[in-house]
Amino acid sequence: MNDLYFDDFHVGQSFTSRTQTITRERIVAFGEEFDPQPQHINGAAAASSNFGELIASGWHTAAVTMRLQYEAAFSRIANGGMGAGIEALNWLRPVRPGDELQVVVEVKEMRPSGSRPDRGVIRFLTTTLNQSGQTVQTMLGTVLVPRRT
Amino acid sequence: MNDLYFDDFHVGQSFTSRTQTITRERIVAFGEEFDPQPQHINGAAAASSNFGELIASGWHTAAVTMRLQYEAAFSRIANGGMGAGIEALNWLRPVRPGDELQVVVEVKEMRPSGSRPDRGVIRFLTTTLNQSGQTVQTMLGTVLVPRRT
Repeated sequence: MNDLYFDDFHVGQSFTSRTQTITRERIVAFGEEFDPQPQHINGAAAASSNFGELIASGWHTAAVTMRLQYEAAFSRIANGGMGAGIEALNWLRPVRPGDELQVVVEVKEMRPSGSRPDRGVIRFLTTTLNQSGQTVQTMLGTVLVPRRT
Repeated sequence: MNDLYFDDFHVGQSFTSRTQTITRERIVAFGEEFDPQPQHINGAAAASSNFGELIASGWHTAAVTMRLQYEAAFSRIANGGMGAGIEALNWLRPVRPGDELQVVVEVKEMRPSGSRPDRGVIRFLTTTLNQSGQTVQTMLGTVLVPRRT
């Protein structure tokens, strides 16, 4: 399955993941560990907030996105690829208990590495959608991908 | 404790967090849930990788950073602040089992909101350091902060 090299990608190509349900229990546990704002961990406080109910930490959404994009795309890169950083990460809509997330990973730009002829640089846009097809998060990141020799 | 308004911040101001130890168990559990690359979840595979041992997922480091920056700075904002997105997130060095992370949150830029006179926009640079004072992650993000009325 680790079968994709830089040369196998093209701009405009996309990979779509499975869906992942976000449970109330996991929203609260993630929030308690990493992002203990009231709207992530306290149902009563969340009910009286602008959101009206518990919402997931954006970092929880980002972590689930990592899982789904890894399964759908990055796990198929010949050496697993190497993340070279995130240029933008934006949360556009709240993620609520029971939401089913899915990601679409799209190749936006490709260039050979200037210093390493054995690899290239791919810029990916990863869009995280809910079960209504609404975008909840966008992320633009760069991955180093080996070239066929 | 929710005592800081936009007007109480100034460019150059910084907030330093407590330290948080990153355990092997948590590295593996986070990796298995969110980022199942071999170097995060499989000690034997990690030993034969470029890293030589298990390393934390960058998203684990980001999540711990969120916790520490929330405690040190954002929890003190009058309404908790509202994250408006991440402009850059970069992982500069691996995080290994037993590392003790600490974050420094620095005010880089401030401007009143164009559309909302009751709030301002603050750009923060959050640097995550290990116990040797080496930078393991940098993050540049923007938070909406209420103004004093």
